[in-house]
Amino acid sequence: MPAELGAVESARRIRDGVLTAEELVGECLERIRALEPKVQAWQFLDEAHALAQARALDERKRNGEPLGPLHGVPVGIKDIIDTGDMPTENGTAIHAGRTPRDDAAVVRMLRAAGAVILGKTVTTECAYFNPGKTRNPHNPQHTPGGSSSGSAAAVGAGMVPLALGSQTAGSVIRPAAFCGAYGFKPTHGLIPRSGILTLSRTLDHVGLFARSIDDLALLLEQLQGYDELDPDTRPRARIPFGDLAREEPPLEPMFAFVKTPHWERTDADTKEAFAELQDSLGKNMEEVELFPSATDAWDWQRTIMEAEMAANLEPLWVAGKEKLSEKLRGLIERGREVRAVDHQRAVRRIAPTVESLDELFMQRYDAILTTPALGTAPKGLGSTGDPVFCVLWTLLGMPAITLPLMRGDNGLPLGVQLVGRKGYDARLLRTARWLEGKVGS
Amino acid sequence: MPAELGAVESARRIRDGVLTAEELVGECLERIRALEPKVQAWQFLDEAHALAQARALDERKRNGEPLGPLHGVPVGIKDIIDTGDMPTENGTAIHAGRTPRDDAAVVRMLRAAGAVILGKTVTTECAYFNPGKTRNPHNPQHTPGGSSSGSAAAVGAGMVPLALGSQTAGSVIRPAAFCGAYGFKPTHGLIPRSGILTLSRTLDHVGLFARSIDDLALLLEQLQGYDELDPDTRPRARIPFGDLAREEPPLEPMFAFVKTPHWERTDADTKEAFAELQDSLGKNMEEVELFPSATDAWDWQRTIMEAEMAANLEPLWVAGKEKLSEKLRGLIERGREVRAVDHQRAVRRIAPTVESLDELFMQRYDAILTTPALGTAPKGLGSTGDPVFCVLWTLLGMPAITLPLMRGDNGLPLGVQLVGRKGYDARLLRTARWLEGKVGS
Repeated sequence: MPAELGAVESARRIRDGVLTAEELVGECLERIRALEPKVQAWQFLDEAHALAQARALDERKRNGEPLGPLHGVPVGIKDIIDTGDMPTENGTAIHAGRTPRDDAAVVRMLRAAGAVILGKTVTTECAYFNPGKTRNPHNPQHTPGGSSSGSAAAVGAGMVPLALGSQTAGSVIRPAAFCGAYGFKPTHGLIPRSGILTLSRTLDHVGLFARSIDDLALLLEQLQGYDELDPDTRPRARIPFGDLAREEPPLEPMFAFVKTPHWERTDADTKEAFAELQDSLGKNMEEVELFPSATDAWDWQRTIMEAEMAANLEPLWVAGKEKLSEKLRGLIERGREVRAVDHQRAVRRIAPTVESLDELFMQRYDAILTTPALGTAPKGLGSTGDPVFCVLWTLLGMPAITLPLMRGDNGLPLGVQLVGRKGYDARLLRTARWLEGKVGS
Repeated sequence: MPAELGAVESARRIRDGVLTAEELVGECLERIRALEPKVQAWQFLDEAHALAQARALDERKRNGEPLGPLHGVPVGIKDIIDTGDMPTENGTAIHAGRTPRDDAAVVRMLRAAGAVILGKTVTTECAYFNPGKTRNPHNPQHTPGGSSSGSAAAVGAGMVPLALGSQTAGSVIRPAAFCGAYGFKPTHGLIPRSGILTLSRTLDHVGLFARSIDDLALLLEQLQGYDELDPDTRPRARIPFGDLAREEPPLEPMFAFVKTPHWERTDADTKEAFAELQDSLGKNMEEVELFPSATDAWDWQRTIMEAEMAANLEPLWVAGKEKLSEKLRGLIERGREVRAVDHQRAVRRIAPTVESLDELFMQRYDAILTTPALGTAPKGLGSTGDPVFCVLWTLLGMPAITLPLMRGDNGLPLGVQLVGRKGYDARLLRTARWLEGKVGS
């Protein structure tokens, strides 16, 4: 099934002329038609417009024009990421019918790489906790996670090989794990965020969903870059993530198993699965305790998220706070009371905490290994689950990836989260690939 | 008198072998010995250490080693800027005897350019409003302004050709104007701030004092640069400010005379002096009103300064708030009550306001022209004067320069402040040089 070929392989076949973009998009649309009634991953999807993009790309190939690395590959875009040719509603009724004039930087980059912008995927309300309509593709009675619910579900269901999301607490890693997709939140500042609904400059990351590590690496390679409008990006040489991810590690990687102070809250089958993983990794995995002050990091993240979201969503609050969910109103109300000194104190803890963790990587370990969530996707659609196992790495801006390597007792996917040294995304991808080779199916 | 030669000319003579660094430093020290009892510009000055630096530089010249652009030129350093070989006390008893391990980035850059770090100049308490011991070199009954009081007075008195200060509200431009020096606060982020007491990341700037525009340009050229530890600096090509400042403008510059909503508070002789300036500039100067919302900018600056200083000075507050002045305690108390949403809202106003002002420069004007202060240095040493005419340009991070081109009725210096487009520092220096040629003595 072409939609499950993956991005690397699809792009190769299109380049080789054994597949057309139109055929690939057609297959994706067919699978969407079959599964969407159950999964509800898409907020906006215009089949004719998607096919027109594909045909235009096929025409370019026939004309002998140069092809981008994602030529003809369809991508789903979380509906907080602006698209100049499709509505972007940010998951709130206040923005119903909102049509941006311009593409977000990442959408421009995707188009430049030859991708088909297939459609917009469901987000929770303003990428916070109030769920959208999406269901878990592995069991529609379970949440897909959030806030990038539609992107995770669409990739998990094989509707599309690639999708973009965003993570401010645990909005990429958690839904990817719940939906059985590969999810990746690169180092803070690696991917530009202009044209995306801002929740928190300090915490917001663009995240990626795919069906393999190679596909994540290829996608990241296209999305890295400097953007004058995102003050946390920097001009620097392009990194060939695709090639670097496929390199063999020079030594067998060592994993620091970090349970965090929240491990006791994980499900029994999760605990068991990680114990088995520890057995099978043997000497390559060692349990490491976080230094005591790291325990406060969850509070720092909450303070920053509340204060910055209250400021950034103030226009919505003013335009119609009665149209916001109780969850989001509560967040903004708490955020409006945060004092500037407390907010700044929390932000100021980030750099020294990253430095402390750097030592782990310099001493001995290639990646931190932990769970992406408390367990498999919880039953019910009223909550998107708890981001507690993502919050620390989001706060610190460290790269994090989840791999769908295990299953829970209920048959739903269980992910393994690896966290890399800040700024060392390629090494994390390479290490993840080694792990998959070692314990993957 | 060598101390009044200026940096460009002194460096040339040293290069040409008609002056030695030791002679130049000796002359400066002699003038300091004569004037310091009256002016009190220096917080720390070790004559032997200064002369030893000079002799080492002369030795390097004799050995035929390459010479930096400031080879042998003495520079005074505001005592909130770390020096690894001299105490840095930040103007507070809590830091009495504090001896940093490392030089601030700007001090490293000065040493690399061959400068002699002559000594540390008096700062107000933590670069806020509580005065130090310094007096105005033109009349010791008058304030030198602040917070860079010692740097301004030392340069104004001809004790040293160059000095560094800092500006968070009006701490460079105002004292330079009061002391009859040339003062320059470049674009925010052009000069790195690591190793300098942080009051406010958003508002803090390094500023320069000299006795000519050419000297300011030469000094700025050495201090520009990227610094990993100052997140507001950017890697970019070095700008040859010295050469650019000396270029002739392609057209006669046009000045936008901006009185701001605070003009009525200026002294009568200041109003008169600017009316005369308007006469002599004729068609090259037009009065321009700020757009109405700019009136709020003074509140935004206050909110940001209070909130960020309260956060950054928290360690002092904890270590011994009873040792802080009432002024500084009051600021911190107000700052601790600022809400994070109000702080962020104020910060968020900066970029669009800069954009609105950009239009002035794109349409018609080379520089904004205004007063640096309400008038000449006020009588008395209990206050450093009002920064109201600097606050807007500091908030917006636009480059500002003050030129000592006029005198008040009391014979004290009156400055002319020019403000340039953000990021166009070389053009501002060139325009200032044209103005000085046109109306200077």
